Amino acid sequence: MVDIPDLSFEALSPVSFLERSAWVYADRLAVISGERRFTYAEHWLRVRKLAGMLHGLGVVQGDRVAVLAPNTHVLLEASTGVAAGGAVLVALNVRLQPAEIATILDHAGVSVLIADTELRELAQQSLRQATNAPRLLLAGLDGSGQDEYEQLLDAASPIYLPVSDERQLLSINYTSGTTGDPKGVMYHYRGAYLQALAMAFHAKLDLKTRYLWTLPMFHTNGWSFPWAVTAAGGVHLCLRKVDPEDIWHRLKENGVTHLCAAPTVLTSLAAHRDAAPLSRSVRAMVGGAPPSPSLLQRMDDLNIEVLHLYGLTETFGPAILCDWRPEWNDAPAESRARILARQGVANLVSQRVRVMNESGDDVPADGQSMGQVAIRGNNVMLGYYRDSEGTRRAAPDGYFRTGDLGVMHPDGYIELRDRLKDVIISGGENISSIEVENMLCEHPDVAEAAVVGMPDDHWGEIPVAFVAIKSLARPVDEAQLIEFVRKHLAHFKAPKMIVFGDLPKTSTGKIQKHLLRAQQVPGLPQPESGNSNTEQPD
Amino acid sequence: MVDIPDLSFEALSPVSFLERSAWVYADRLAVISGERRFTYAEHWLRVRKLAGMLHGLGVVQGDRVAVLAPNTHVLLEASTGVAAGGAVLVALNVRLQPAEIATILDHAGVSVLIADTELRELAQQSLRQATNAPRLLLAGLDGSGQDEYEQLLDAASPIYLPVSDERQLLSINYTSGTTGDPKGVMYHYRGAYLQALAMAFHAKLDLKTRYLWTLPMFHTNGWSFPWAVTAAGGVHLCLRKVDPEDIWHRLKENGVTHLCAAPTVLTSLAAHRDAAPLSRSVRAMVGGAPPSPSLLQRMDDLNIEVLHLYGLTETFGPAILCDWRPEWNDAPAESRARILARQGVANLVSQRVRVMNESGDDVPADGQSMGQVAIRGNNVMLGYYRDSEGTRRAAPDGYFRTGDLGVMHPDGYIELRDRLKDVIISGGENISSIEVENMLCEHPDVAEAAVVGMPDDHWGEIPVAFVAIKSLARPVDEAQLIEFVRKHLAHFKAPKMIVFGDLPKTSTGKIQKHLLRAQQVPGLPQPESGNSNTEQPD
Repeated sequence: MVDIPDLSFEALSPVSFLERSAWVYADRLAVISGERRFTYAEHWLRVRKLAGMLHGLGVVQGDRVAVLAPNTHVLLEASTGVAAGGAVLVALNVRLQPAEIATILDHAGVSVLIADTELRELAQQSLRQATNAPRLLLAGLDGSGQDEYEQLLDAASPIYLPVSDERQLLSINYTSGTTGDPKGVMYHYRGAYLQALAMAFHAKLDLKTRYLWTLPMFHTNGWSFPWAVTAAGGVHLCLRKVDPEDIWHRLKENGVTHLCAAPTVLTSLAAHRDAAPLSRSVRAMVGGAPPSPSLLQRMDDLNIEVLHLYGLTETFGPAILCDWRPEWNDAPAESRARILARQGVANLVSQRVRVMNESGDDVPADGQSMGQVAIRGNNVMLGYYRDSEGTRRAAPDGYFRTGDLGVMHPDGYIELRDRLKDVIISGGENISSIEVENMLCEHPDVAEAAVVGMPDDHWGEIPVAFVAIKSLARPVDEAQLIEFVRKHLAHFKAPKMIVFGDLPKTSTGKIQKHLLRAQQVPGLPQPESGNSNTEQPD
Repeated sequence: MVDIPDLSFEALSPVSFLERSAWVYADRLAVISGERRFTYAEHWLRVRKLAGMLHGLGVVQGDRVAVLAPNTHVLLEASTGVAAGGAVLVALNVRLQPAEIATILDHAGVSVLIADTELRELAQQSLRQATNAPRLLLAGLDGSGQDEYEQLLDAASPIYLPVSDERQLLSINYTSGTTGDPKGVMYHYRGAYLQALAMAFHAKLDLKTRYLWTLPMFHTNGWSFPWAVTAAGGVHLCLRKVDPEDIWHRLKENGVTHLCAAPTVLTSLAAHRDAAPLSRSVRAMVGGAPPSPSLLQRMDDLNIEVLHLYGLTETFGPAILCDWRPEWNDAPAESRARILARQGVANLVSQRVRVMNESGDDVPADGQSMGQVAIRGNNVMLGYYRDSEGTRRAAPDGYFRTGDLGVMHPDGYIELRDRLKDVIISGGENISSIEVENMLCEHPDVAEAAVVGMPDDHWGEIPVAFVAIKSLARPVDEAQLIEFVRKHLAHFKAPKMIVFGDLPKTSTGKIQKHLLRAQQVPGLPQPESGNSNTEQPD
């Protein structure tokens, strides 16, 4: 417009939230992690020292730094500290197998791996299988009383290198995708900043927030809550393990106000012997699968207010949420639960969510016409790391295809009906059916395999395998086959049950998974008739 | 990073909030304006029809469209609708004189002026004085029962032209500045988007919000609340006039949850005979001058929770706010009021606020060292319209100098202590002392004049003039002189009182305003000794 100094521009960066909170809430409590407590000034200092430490280890701008840790202050510090030094965070799922981790380390070209000492074995095995093993840095006290992370951090000089390009690469979040190949979802600073603002707004975070870390921070950068809670000046209550007894204790005694989780975590809480209505309302952001009506009723009784969220790694986690209208409070409990089980609408910073037919046009908003859920905008990934072809396939016209089929209701809320690509969601983890099928087929006695998600009260879904064996003369044992998968893949991916027999096929030879899903499996609940109209996507 | 379609970028625009709300909350009530009510779908349609109507009148991208209206749906529609068509909004202060408006119309090069019929006289007089008179469009029913705005809107086709450059010019907000020359503060889409998010977050707006429009929308685009309330899906309760009786009625009967105002509005509310504690808490965002301790105490009693904000037109209004820490709740009422009277800290999207000495370095955060408050970042103006030199002067190093002197407290909160440039703030309006002095001096019998702000319980400050007359043989009447100013300037700028006599000067001939401020004026409260440490900036 006119020739001016840059008084009106600052690159959007999630690091700026901590910078602000360290200034504004310097002496306020920021982090509780085990026995340790840090104020915002201390947290910010540690974050900048982490950045300085990485530079001391030779990490330069754009280098990838991986972290293998549960929800401790270490991963929280890395969520901002790696970026503070201009490097790129790769947060690893602690439930992966060494070979899977090694594949990611190689694919991302990781130069430093920070690992929790409790995961030392896993880290070391992974390094041995990696082609280019990164420098390993252990965090936490090991048997010898050494904490290398802490020692180096202590000695480091704090640095902060703000970005100038807000669309720079912030982190890579690996998702198994549907084919089992690692897909590195690239996050950018601008997206993380805006998504954090949306989360702070919708979750109603503020200075009174005490946020319990039940959601793994390695999942889509913890749905941006490392930055959202910090922006609001709340307290991060780190949690090494999701243990219902411990969580109930913290809900009752530690003044927890907010948490995020998959429905399975809430199910465990509801079923626990310590479950009792809370004296003040706690807000639970729930995603990964729609919460069931009975679970919602139970949460209501316990004074836990549920916000249902939906999204994918590619959309910075919850780009969509079931925004609750006050007028729905008067509906009967059953319809309230039905309404809340819908995935909902674009969050405050998301562009309009669409349900598209195969030509890329919107389906009618009639609650009947199915289409693929698609989204674009500032809280969508830059693309897949080192996979432009995959990126183009995922967003051929700039709209990212979620792979989920749903309908658009007349009130503008979407509801999922089926998964296009048969991903199974179990306990909040994505399981690629194809990946497990391929593994089963590697067993010498397996002829064909199809893996589908079956509804399960606790896990949401469990993977069930249907297997045709090569020869009746060489029968295979169910337990044996499950063990075979567990040896090669993360344990949660292994089928919980195997049904032997021929697989139903179409005339062109495609396996008819919908028939398998409809099949009655002994020990599992009776499937509903038809599968296109159930609350729980299959 | 890689060659990708633009799946991860959308230009930030406050228009997108209404676009989203129209989709997500289509049938929910958005606007109440007199007898009229519009849902979000209707509001969005009218906004796009306004854009279409302007195009029909020949307005193209970048053209300036002015609005002269109180807080009705017309100005609310223009706040988003002018941008929806790519044009630039110039919202005019309805208290200006025709000559002042004419100057702005000419300076901004306005092509269309939309005016409320109640302001028809003012609009027409202004046009007569303008060199290039824009097309006038009257809104609201006039004597003949004609509403040209409504008729054209009705006939228009809806359009929406999203911006591709988020730093494009969105609006020009004129401020009298300190010299009396009109200064056109240029807002950009990105800044308005982020500031609206910050306001929605800090004011805790949500779907239950019923926002009362006590703050003029023509002041700094209503502190971005036209967009913030819309983003949250709340209801805009438009208000033609600030009338305490009417406001009390709406607070009690219409479920108002939020309002913004200058302290004078709250003072009027507190003093009104209908004042009574509200059954539910109402949140009042207060800016323009620090609320006094007695006012805060009174608000507390009335169940009105005060959030103290500070900012300038150049910073999209409230870039700074007195973020209330829960631990302060336990302080005695008096210290609570003292804490809340501080201007505070950067809002969520603001860059760190600085208090600078003359070399541009930060003063120590000791609550003692004075410096000028300075700020830069995404919620700072692009610059002054057609005044690059003024822009450079205001932000010589990229930091916008607010012209306010303050201190930084050890806890990171700033507190104003004095105004560098002697602007007087009366009833939330800025009065340039120099402008009024110049006008006084145009009177044939005035030799010299100095105008200072004197503390006033109701207005915060009132302008008081100290005048030396040319000849004792030709005495001037106080009322006469006030009338002289009122004839040429907005009435609120006219001195409330005139003291005749010689003016104290420094050896170099500069008028010593601090001595005038310390002077006891009959009919005004006794000034405090010294003026560098009072709660109320003078």
